[in-house]
Amino acid sequence: MTKKTIVTCALTGAGDTTGKSEFVPVSPEQIADDAIAAARAGASAVHIHVRNIATGQGSRDVGLYREVVRIVRESDVDPVINLTAGMGGDLVVDPQDPTKQLEGTDLVSGIDRLPHVEELLPEICTIDCGTLNFGEGSNIYVSTPDMLREGAAKIQELGVKPEMEIFDTGNLWFGNVLVREGLIDPPPLYQLCMGIPYGAPVDAGLLQAMVNMLPDGAEWTSFAIGRNQLPWVAQSVLLGGHVRVGLEDNLYLRKGVKATNAELTERAVDIVESLGAQVATPDEARDILGLNKKG
Amino acid sequence: MTKKTIVTCALTGAGDTTGKSEFVPVSPEQIADDAIAAARAGASAVHIHVRNIATGQGSRDVGLYREVVRIVRESDVDPVINLTAGMGGDLVVDPQDPTKQLEGTDLVSGIDRLPHVEELLPEICTIDCGTLNFGEGSNIYVSTPDMLREGAAKIQELGVKPEMEIFDTGNLWFGNVLVREGLIDPPPLYQLCMGIPYGAPVDAGLLQAMVNMLPDGAEWTSFAIGRNQLPWVAQSVLLGGHVRVGLEDNLYLRKGVKATNAELTERAVDIVESLGAQVATPDEARDILGLNKKG
Amino acid sequence: MTKKTIVTCALTGAGDTTGKSEFVPVSPEQIADDAIAAARAGASAVHIHVRNIATGQGSRDVGLYREVVRIVRESDVDPVINLTAGMGGDLVVDPQDPTKQLEGTDLVSGIDRLPHVEELLPEICTIDCGTLNFGEGSNIYVSTPDMLREGAAKIQELGVKPEMEIFDTGNLWFGNVLVREGLIDPPPLYQLCMGIPYGAPVDAGLLQAMVNMLPDGAEWTSFAIGRNQLPWVAQSVLLGGHVRVGLEDNLYLRKGVKATNAELTERAVDIVESLGAQVATPDEARDILGLNKKG
Amino acid sequence: MTKKTIVTCALTGAGDTTGKSEFVPVSPEQIADDAIAAARAGASAVHIHVRNIATGQGSRDVGLYREVVRIVRESDVDPVINLTAGMGGDLVVDPQDPTKQLEGTDLVSGIDRLPHVEELLPEICTIDCGTLNFGEGSNIYVSTPDMLREGAAKIQELGVKPEMEIFDTGNLWFGNVLVREGLIDPPPLYQLCMGIPYGAPVDAGLLQAMVNMLPDGAEWTSFAIGRNQLPWVAQSVLLGGHVRVGLEDNLYLRKGVKATNAELTERAVDIVESLGAQVATPDEARDILGLNKKG
Repeated sequence: MTKKTIVTCALTGAGDTTGKSEFVPVSPEQIADDAIAAARAGASAVHIHVRNIATGQGSRDVGLYREVVRIVRESDVDPVINLTAGMGGDLVVDPQDPTKQLEGTDLVSGIDRLPHVEELLPEICTIDCGTLNFGEGSNIYVSTPDMLREGAAKIQELGVKPEMEIFDTGNLWFGNVLVREGLIDPPPLYQLCMGIPYGAPVDAGLLQAMVNMLPDGAEWTSFAIGRNQLPWVAQSVLLGGHVRVGLEDNLYLRKGVKATNAELTERAVDIVESLGAQVATPDEARDILGLNKKG
Repeated sequence: MTKKTIVTCALTGAGDTTGKSEFVPVSPEQIADDAIAAARAGASAVHIHVRNIATGQGSRDVGLYREVVRIVRESDVDPVINLTAGMGGDLVVDPQDPTKQLEGTDLVSGIDRLPHVEELLPEICTIDCGTLNFGEGSNIYVSTPDMLREGAAKIQELGVKPEMEIFDTGNLWFGNVLVREGLIDPPPLYQLCMGIPYGAPVDAGLLQAMVNMLPDGAEWTSFAIGRNQLPWVAQSVLLGGHVRVGLEDNLYLRKGVKATNAELTERAVDIVESLGAQVATPDEARDILGLNKKG
Repeated sequence: MTKKTIVTCALTGAGDTTGKSEFVPVSPEQIADDAIAAARAGASAVHIHVRNIATGQGSRDVGLYREVVRIVRESDVDPVINLTAGMGGDLVVDPQDPTKQLEGTDLVSGIDRLPHVEELLPEICTIDCGTLNFGEGSNIYVSTPDMLREGAAKIQELGVKPEMEIFDTGNLWFGNVLVREGLIDPPPLYQLCMGIPYGAPVDAGLLQAMVNMLPDGAEWTSFAIGRNQLPWVAQSVLLGGHVRVGLEDNLYLRKGVKATNAELTERAVDIVESLGAQVATPDEARDILGLNKKG
Repeated sequence: MTKKTIVTCALTGAGDTTGKSEFVPVSPEQIADDAIAAARAGASAVHIHVRNIATGQGSRDVGLYREVVRIVRESDVDPVINLTAGMGGDLVVDPQDPTKQLEGTDLVSGIDRLPHVEELLPEICTIDCGTLNFGEGSNIYVSTPDMLREGAAKIQELGVKPEMEIFDTGNLWFGNVLVREGLIDPPPLYQLCMGIPYGAPVDAGLLQAMVNMLPDGAEWTSFAIGRNQLPWVAQSVLLGGHVRVGLEDNLYLRKGVKATNAELTERAVDIVESLGAQVATPDEARDILGLNKKG
C-alpha cells in the first residue's frame, strides 16, 4: 500500500437509471459539472459516458462527448479523462428465435466504437474484453476477439491508454493475450468489474484469484455495483488495487439515501485514507499509468 | 474424499477435431462403441454429442442420438447416459458489421435444443449457462437467461438431471440463480469447464474460488482441456469434485501420442485411485446424483 | 454483512509499550477509564489485561483485574467484558543451552492461568491455542494440548465463553479439535490474530483460507497489529468477521500520530459503517455469541 | 509445469513408527539400502534421519550418519543427500508445572544440531523454522529466531543448502526473514509440511496462500502426512512444487497395505508423470537447486 490509489468517478453510465435518481447527470453540462465536482472531491480520474438529452438513454454522439470534454478541460480542475468506448455492443435477441435482433440492438464494429476517442484523444478509453449476457432477458454485450484486436490496435496507434474492462475471468485471459501480443503498451491497466449480472460476482476469493492472474507490472482497479460499491473500495485497496465509484454503478450512499457523484467520491476518499493509503492526484495518476495528456 | 468419484468420458464433442485424430468417433456406431469401451475402462458416465456422418461436423439430428443411445442401452454395460443439449447456440458475426450473421451460425431457442432429450430421456443432459466468445475470430456461444429458464423448466418437467455447464464465474452465478428459483431439482450438478478460450482459464486458485461459491449440497465436476486434461483430474479430486476426460476435450495421452477414449478413461481411473479415491460405478453415480433411469 | 459487527477494543495488552505511548493505560483506574471511553466510542466489548502499577509490565494479579472489572461494571456503560487468560505462558530460553530458562519466564499450568476468570466470571476469556515463537530472540509462548484441554474444560464449567486466540493455522486446527471434542460450547468464537511475529502474517489470501477452515456456525473476529490494524478492520468485515482494535495491538492513528483507545474505536466504527455494516451494541454482541452475563 | 519435479524420499524420520511397520529402516545399513532402493525407484533426493539400533528411537549420533552416507556414496546410485538437522529440539513439559522438563526432552543449541552436517557436508540439510506443539500431550519442538539465525549462518558457511522446514505460516514468515537478511543463498528452498499436528493442516487453499507468500525465485516442495501423502504429491505438482514421500511421513500404500520406501517412491513418480510432469534426475535436481556436491 505504498503506491498512491487512483480514485475514478464513473459519472453516469448508460443504464436505465435517470428515472431512479434525480442526481444522475444527463446533459453534457450536467455530466461535466459532475466531473468537476468529483475532481474537487478528490477523484483522480473521471469515467465518462454521454446520454441523449431528450431520452436520457446512453448515446455514442461525438458532439455530446466533445461538449463534456471541452467544459472539463476548460475548468480549473484537471482530472484524468477516461471516455467509455464500450457503446455499440448491444445485441437483444428474441429468445424464441435468437437469430432475430430486437429493439435495443446497437451493434457496430470495434473501430466504429472509437470516433470520439479518435477526435478527443482522452488520456484513457475503455475496451470491454468479451461477450456476455448483460442482465436478465436476452441482452448480450458483444465484443469478439477480432473486434477487440482491431480496436486495441487503433487505440494504441492513437496513443490513448486502454482500460481493459474485465467482466469475467475469460475476459481477463483475453486481456492477457492482448498484452502478450503487444497490442497494449505497458503498463497494462485492468478494470475488474464485479457484480454485474452475469459476469464475475462480488466475491473476495474470486478477486484474489483474478489479481493472481495478472501479468507482472500490471496496474489494476476494481469496482462492485450497487450496495457493494463502497465496501469494494476497501477490498480493492486491501489487495493493492485502485478504485472506482460513481452513479454509473450505484445510486445510494446508504439504504434510502441517494448519492451524488461528489458524495460517492468523498466517501471513497475517506475509505482509502481510513486504510492508511493515499489518493493519487491527477498528475500522480498520470505518472502511475504512464498517460499521455492531450487536448 | 470419502465419496466416490464419478468419471465421465466426453466421447466426441462438436469440435473441428476429426481431422486431427483418427480416434475421434463420428458415426453413431463409432460413438456408441467408444461409449461401451469407456464404460468397460471404468467410466461411470458418458457424455455424448453426435456428428454428421458425411462431414464429421457436430449435429443436432435426433436420429443420430437415437441410434447411439439404442446401441449403448442394448449393450452389456450400463453407463449413465449424458446427452449434450448445448448445440444450437452458435452465432458467427462479421466483425466489420456485427449485425450480420455469417456461415456457421446455428442458433435456435432453448426449447429447440431439447428434442432429442425429450424423446430419449437420458439420465442427464447439459445446459450451458451463459453467452461468451468461443475461441478466436468472432464466434459467440449464445444462451440467454430467458432461454435458459425456459430450457431448465422443460428439462425439469422431463425428469432429466441438468448438468450445468459453467464456462465462467458469471455462468456459475446464473446457475445459482436457477437453483434458487427452483428450476433445478436437488442436488444441483455443476460442470466447471476450465481452459476453453475465452472462458475460465486453467487456474487452481480460480477453481477453489468457484467451488467456494457453490450452494450447500451441490455436486460438481470439473475438466480442463488439452494437455491439462489429465492433471486436472487430480486437481478436481483433490478439491472434492468429480472428473471428466475424453476426446471432446483432449486428443493426446502425452505429447505426440494420440489417445482413445478408453485410454483416457483408464488414465483418469488410475489418477483417481492414485489419490486414494474410488471411482463410482454407474449405479453409485445414479445414487450420488439422484438420477432417474429411463429408457 | 447482514449480521451486526462486534467491535472489541483491546485496551493495553502486556507488551513493552508503556514507554512508547503515554496513552497506554497502566493502573486499574486508567484501564477501566479507557474501557468506559471505548464503550462510549462504540466498542461492543473490551479486552482487558492488567499491568503492575510500579513497573508497567503485564501482570496476573487478581486484585488488579478485580478493580478494573468493578469500575467498569459500576459505570453507566455496559460493554461485554473479555479478560485475557493468556498470561503465564512465557518461556525465555538460552539459545546456547535451551534447557536453561532465563529471566522473563513466567510459566504456569492451564488452570493457574484462570483464577481471575474463576473469581470475576467475565462474559468472555481468551484461550491461546498453541505454542510458538513470540518475536525475535528466544521467547516462546507455551500452551500445550494437555494444558489447553484442561483450561477449556474449566472455562466451560464456569460458563464463560472462551475466545480462541489463533496465532497460526495449526492453532486453528487445534481449536477445531477442541470444538469437536465438545470442550467449547456453541457457537465457538475464534480470534484470528495476524501479523504477530512469528505467527500468521498479514495476508488476505491466508485470512480467506483460515475462514474457510472454520466449522459451520462459528463466529470469528480478526485483527492485525501495527499499521495494519485499521485496514484489517475493513478486511475482516469484508470476509464476514468481527473486528478488534486498541492499544494492545497498535499505538498510532496514522504515521506519527499517537492514538487513544477511544480514538481507535471511533475509527473502527467509522470503517465498519463505511462498509455498510452496523456495529453491534453490547447486548447485540451478547445475543450473537450466546453470552452469560454475570457479576 | 515445464520445470522438472524433484522427488525426495524421506526414509525413516524419528517418529515412533518402528513398531508399526516392519519396513521402517533402523540400522545404518537398512537406511542406506532404502536410500539406494529409493534412488533406483526414481527418487532425486533422499532425506535421512538415523536411529539408535538398540531402541529404534531417533538419534543424533554422527557415527550413524557417517555410516549411512558412506554406503550411499559408495553405491552405484547418486541421489542428492539431504540430512535432517532438526534433531535436538524436543521439549516435553509437565502440564501441571510447565517449568519442569520431562523425559523425552532433548534440547540443544542451533549449532549443536549440526555436527554431522559439518563433518559429512551433505548437499542439503534441513532447518526447522519455528517452535510449535508437536502432537497431543505437551511435546514442543523448539527452534527460536536466535538459534535459527546462528544455525543458518553456520550452514551457509559450510556451503550446504538449507531446506527450510515450514510447519506453519509463521515459520514461512521467518524463513522469508532469513532470506531477506542474506542468511540463505539463492535460490531459497522451502519445504511446506502439511498435516503434522499442530502445524499447518492439509488444505489446498492454505497451500495456495503459502505459495503466494514465497519470494520470487524460491524453490518449494511440499508434503502431507499419512493417507494424504500420495494425493499431496499431485497437489504440490499442480501448484508448481516439488514433492516428498517416504516412510517418515506415511506407512501405507493404501488402507491396510504397508509400503516400502521404494514403493512409495514409485507411486510418487507415477503420479508426477500422470500429471504430465517429469521427475528430475539427481543431477537435474542439483542444477535446479544450485547444490554443491561434496564428499
